[in-house]
Amino acid sequence: MAGTKRHLLAVPELIARKREGNRLSDKDIQALIAGFMNGSVADYQMSALAMAIYFRGLDFDETVAMTLAMRDSGTVLSLDELDAPKVDKHSTGGVGDKVSICLAPIVAACGVTVPMMSGRGLGHTGGTLDKLEAIPGFRVDLSVREFRAQLRKIGCALIGQTGDLAPADKRLYALRDVTGTVESIPLITSSILSKKLAEGIDALVLDVKVGRGAFMKTEPDARDLARSLVRVGTLAGKRVSALLTDMNSPIGYTIGNALETSEALEILHGEGPDDLRHLTYELAVEMLRAAGIAQTKARALRRVELAVSSGDALQKMRQIVGAQGGDPAVVDAPDRLALARRRSTIRATKAGYVTELDPLELGHTSMSLGAGRSRSEDAVDWGAGIRLRVKRGDEVREGDPLATLYASRSALLEPAADRAASAIRIAKRRPAPRDRIIATIRR
Amino acid sequence: MAGTKRHLLAVPELIARKREGNRLSDKDIQALIAGFMNGSVADYQMSALAMAIYFRGLDFDETVAMTLAMRDSGTVLSLDELDAPKVDKHSTGGVGDKVSICLAPIVAACGVTVPMMSGRGLGHTGGTLDKLEAIPGFRVDLSVREFRAQLRKIGCALIGQTGDLAPADKRLYALRDVTGTVESIPLITSSILSKKLAEGIDALVLDVKVGRGAFMKTEPDARDLARSLVRVGTLAGKRVSALLTDMNSPIGYTIGNALETSEALEILHGEGPDDLRHLTYELAVEMLRAAGIAQTKARALRRVELAVSSGDALQKMRQIVGAQGGDPAVVDAPDRLALARRRSTIRATKAGYVTELDPLELGHTSMSLGAGRSRSEDAVDWGAGIRLRVKRGDEVREGDPLATLYASRSALLEPAADRAASAIRIAKRRPAPRDRIIATIRR
Repeated sequence: MAGTKRHLLAVPELIARKREGNRLSDKDIQALIAGFMNGSVADYQMSALAMAIYFRGLDFDETVAMTLAMRDSGTVLSLDELDAPKVDKHSTGGVGDKVSICLAPIVAACGVTVPMMSGRGLGHTGGTLDKLEAIPGFRVDLSVREFRAQLRKIGCALIGQTGDLAPADKRLYALRDVTGTVESIPLITSSILSKKLAEGIDALVLDVKVGRGAFMKTEPDARDLARSLVRVGTLAGKRVSALLTDMNSPIGYTIGNALETSEALEILHGEGPDDLRHLTYELAVEMLRAAGIAQTKARALRRVELAVSSGDALQKMRQIVGAQGGDPAVVDAPDRLALARRRSTIRATKAGYVTELDPLELGHTSMSLGAGRSRSEDAVDWGAGIRLRVKRGDEVREGDPLATLYASRSALLEPAADRAASAIRIAKRRPAPRDRIIATIRR
Repeated sequence: MAGTKRHLLAVPELIARKREGNRLSDKDIQALIAGFMNGSVADYQMSALAMAIYFRGLDFDETVAMTLAMRDSGTVLSLDELDAPKVDKHSTGGVGDKVSICLAPIVAACGVTVPMMSGRGLGHTGGTLDKLEAIPGFRVDLSVREFRAQLRKIGCALIGQTGDLAPADKRLYALRDVTGTVESIPLITSSILSKKLAEGIDALVLDVKVGRGAFMKTEPDARDLARSLVRVGTLAGKRVSALLTDMNSPIGYTIGNALETSEALEILHGEGPDDLRHLTYELAVEMLRAAGIAQTKARALRRVELAVSSGDALQKMRQIVGAQGGDPAVVDAPDRLALARRRSTIRATKAGYVTELDPLELGHTSMSLGAGRSRSEDAVDWGAGIRLRVKRGDEVREGDPLATLYASRSALLEPAADRAASAIRIAKRRPAPRDRIIATIRR
């Protein structure tokens, strides 16, 4: 009887199997995802299964099956007509993370095709699409045809998820978000990879963030996620590696869309903050190695440095911005990006060393200034945000500026100033330096 | 922020609290059940919560809160106008369990008011309502007014769940049934007790069955459930105790509606199988003690035996059947209950001792003959079923009858005969006897 029912996809029995800690077969998982999409598996069954998976996990093979089933729930792009290796990067989300905007043109300038699909900001983390849209006229909603044409011509496009990629993931994520089932490493793995595997890439470099401003708060959890992503992505037939990076302070000095885009453009000019450059170059090196363009780290790094110093990366960015409807002149004059008119500077109330720039609080502060969204339907104020005036470890005197806040309405500044001030801590002792890059995880 | 959200009943956060193994407050649980009923807590959230409860459990206080919140989701009957103590019995379900039909009139004849609400059969276990309906004209769907009037006049009514008792339990159970979340002791506890506490009773005696034919397969699980029911029911202000009873073979010789009702009526005549009488009397004793009518087990047992030997219990049953529209003459002539016309007897293929009468297989066999339901909307054939001709431990010779099967269509008999034959095992050694009553659990 059980055999017959299994044949007919008895969903409660499959849920109970996972609940008891048993494996689901590839066919079970395919049937569950297909049923979820055609309505024969109800939302209330999928959420119960997600909770069972939260407790029992999925092994790597099950996670591969889940990833591929979700990938195959919609369009799977093929970019086989393009000769160059196609490599994307995905970050699990941090505060002040504008890396994609400088990384993509640098890597494309090195001869890699970069079909980069990014997301919008939600909660305390910003989104690359919102940052790019701070460039007047810049379009992130290219059609698949435009996307292909731009990749062929320029070797890089910076867009939102196009077409109908991994719709099962979209539905499952929305369900997990309201049922307390987000925090599951195999489900996070399959969510990230199902979308990326539908992009037609050959290789993927992941930036798995860990710390107070990241989704993963502890290093063991982040390491587990990074290992899971690398292992499952590899089993799914792609070259996948991951950097584990610190997210206990914002990246660079800026938080907010125009502010961050401007700072990312500085990197292409060979300027900008050291930590942002360092992280961008490390990810670029990893992408070049994944693409098979450089065999050693040293060679890859030289290639990346040359792309910037030669102006090739800058030129690539002008092409990208122009092709996507933006004003390429912004690339050379980032100060053309409009910032919000109301400003307020917070200052040190005592002398000492900056020991903490709480990324979670600063992210929420930037959101409260108008730079972010608490719901996906909220509008974003591109000019709002925070420009930090100090970095962790800096010595300050009483009265020194710590941060400048930008908003379109004065009323937003005061509560935000209090919040930002509480997020920046000053103590007598200089803190021990912290590396942004914690580890590289390869298969 | 978390504080504000809690205030607004942020369901995903409550689910995550339980998922992390934290307690939910009484208010949390009340809000979840109220939200489930008014639609602000979605089915997919409730099923995820149920799965989190499966893994993390509920403590006794949480289970009480859940029970009371579900009880209060609908009508809560008050029978305070009746002076006599009001005691019901509930069985977790077994094969051949016709105990309620003889138990209720015996206990009522001893001066206890017995407002007995029973269920219908589903799966391999039969339901008291279906068995009673084998009596021509017998109505189980009394209105609340009729129910009260009969209790006042006769002291006993045998009906289905009346009115709008614990509708939250009905909805939650239906959801658990399709989401692999049935097997949770706190959820089973609150499901059983929420309905019973809405009946207006003072005390409840539980028959928690354990074994192959029961929902609880192992004694530790059954003991945990019994303890949970007794503890939570007591915390909810009722006198509750439980018998732990063996369900590794059917109760009595009969399985199927008319067959079982007939056998239960024999008990009222001082006849019928010993194991059925023993279990009935033990439960009756426990109900009398719960009612405060007898202080010791010995006195209670004498009272029960007298109720039967005096004919009082039989007279009570005639009154009940008459009041509920049935023909009271059936009580004195159980052979008036119509049995299905097609019959087949299976016989021993070798000599030896009967070591096993698999209740699960026999329950399914009876169902396949037409006596039970696989879905709640299926119709039941009152005359179908199995009359066992042997008990466990009996010695048989080759060719001796083991069981007679009853069905309305001959085609049903052959596959059922094979199945029944495989459920009755004969071996050379006489098996060690097994007690039906394993333990009594009081607070």
